[in-house]
Amino acid sequence: MLRVVLVEPEGEYNVGFIARLCKNFGVDELYIVNPKCDLKKAVEFSAKGSSILLNSKVVDKFTDAIYDLDLKISTSSIADSKGDMLRKSISPWEMINYLDKNKIGLIFGRESVGLTREEIFMTDLLVHIPGNPDYPVLNLSHAVGIILYEIWRSRLTSKENSGIYHGAISS
Amino acid sequence: MLRVVLVEPEGEYNVGFIARLCKNFGVDELYIVNPKCDLKKAVEFSAKGSSILLNSKVVDKFTDAIYDLDLKISTSSIADSKGDMLRKSISPWEMINYLDKNKIGLIFGRESVGLTREEIFMTDLLVHIPGNPDYPVLNLSHAVGIILYEIWRSRLTSKENSGIYHGAISS
Ligand SMILES: Nc1ncnc2c1ncn2[C@@H]1O[C@H](CSCC[C@H](N)C(=O)O)[C@@H](O)[C@H]1O
Ligand SMILES: Nc1ncnc2c1ncn2[C@@H]1O[C@H](CSCC[C@H](N)C(=O)O)[C@@H](O)[C@H]1O
Ligand SMILES: Nc1ncnc2c1ncn2[C@@H]1O[C@H](CSCC[C@H](N)C(=O)O)[C@@H](O)[C@H]1O
Repeated sequence: MLRVVLVEPEGEYNVGFIARLCKNFGVDELYIVNPKCDLKKAVEFSAKGSSILLNSKVVDKFTDAIYDLDLKISTSSIADSKGDMLRKSISPWEMINYLDKNKIGLIFGRESVGLTREEIFMTDLLVHIPGNPDYPVLNLSHAVGIILYEIWRSRLTSKENSGIYHGAISS
Repeated sequence: MLRVVLVEPEGEYNVGFIARLCKNFGVDELYIVNPKCDLKKAVEFSAKGSSILLNSKVVDKFTDAIYDLDLKISTSSIADSKGDMLRKSISPWEMINYLDKNKIGLIFGRESVGLTREEIFMTDLLVHIPGNPDYPVLNLSHAVGIILYEIWRSRLTSKENSGIYHGAISS
C-alpha cells in the first residue's frame, strides 16, 4: 500500500498535478494535511486523477496522516552536506532497497518552507533528489513525480532482471 | 550538450516549470517551436530557471529546432503495444545507453495532441515513460522532469559504479 502525504500544500496546480501523478503511477491513497489552497480548484489540474483527489483524506494534524504507516519516508530539497541535518539523506534509487514494508508513506512539504525538523524527525528515512548543486530545489509536484517514477521503475526493472517481483508495493 | 525542445506548448505553467527543471538538471538549451501560450506569463512559474526561459530560442519550424542535433529523441505518452506505431519505443533507462553523442535533443509534444507522426519520424529514438496502463499520460512538464532526472541519475550512478564518467552529457 502506497500513500502520498502532502503537508500544507499551497498551490492548487501542484495538488491537482499530484493527484494525476498518483493515478499515473498507481498510488493507493492521497492524504492532505491542513491544505492551504482550494482543493476544488485543484481538480482542474488533476485530469483523470480527479477521483483520487475527490477521495483524498484531509486531516488536521501531521500525525493523523502517518500514525498507521509501517515505513515513513520524508523528502527534502536540501541535501545533507551542510552538517545541520537530522540524519543522512539517501537518493531515490537507494530508497528502493527499503520498500519491503506493507504500508508505506511518502511525505512532501510546503512549497514555501518544506517540512519542519520535527516532522522529519518523526519519519524513518529522508530522501533527497540530487540535481544541480546551485539549484536542487524542485517544484513540489515535480519532486512527487520523480519519486513515484523511481518506485514504478524499480518494479519494472526488478521484474526484468530477476523474474521475481519483489517489494510490498504490489497492491 | 543537452537541449530540450518543446513543440507548440499550450500551458504557461508547463513552460515555466520546464525552464525551472532545465536549471535543476543542468540543461544547456531550451528551444520552443511556435509557442501557443504567453512566454512572459510562463516566467512566473520558472523560479530560478527564469534566465533559461529568457534565453530560450523561439523558432517557427520544428526542423529549425533539431537540424543541428547529433541525436534526436522524441517522447510519447503512447507505448508501442498497439501495432499502429512508427517504431518501437524504449524506456527512459534504456535511452541512457544511447547518449554517447555530442548534441542531444529531447523533444516533447503538445499537451493536447502530442507529437505528429511526421515529427516522430524525423527523430532517432522514441521514448515512453511507462506508468499505469490505464492512464500513462503524464502532464507535459512532469514527463520532462522524469526524463531529465533519469539522465542526471545515470551520470551519478555511473560515477558511483565505475569511477568513470561516461557519456557526452558533460558540458
Ligand atoms: N530535490 C528534492 N528532493 C526531494 N524532495 C524535494 C526536492 N525538491 C523539492 N522537494 C519536495 O518539494 C517540497 C517543497 S520544496 C520546499 C523548498 C523550500 N524552500 C525549503 O526550504 O525546503 C519539499 O518539502 C520536498 O517534499
Ligand atoms: N509512440 C508512437 N509511435 C508512433 N506513432 C505515434 C506514437 N505516438 C503517437 N503516434 C502517432 O502520432 C500521430 C499523431 S500524435 C497525436 C496523438 C497521439 N495520441 C499521440 O499521443 O502522439 C497519431 O497518428 C499516432 O499514431
Ligand atoms: N508517459 C509518457 N512518456 C513520455 N512522454 C510523455 C508521457 N506522457 C506525456 N509525455 C510527454 O508530454 C507530451 C504531452 S502529453 C500529450 C497527450 C496527448 N493527449 C496525446 O494524445 O499525445 C507528450 O507529447 C510527450 O512529450
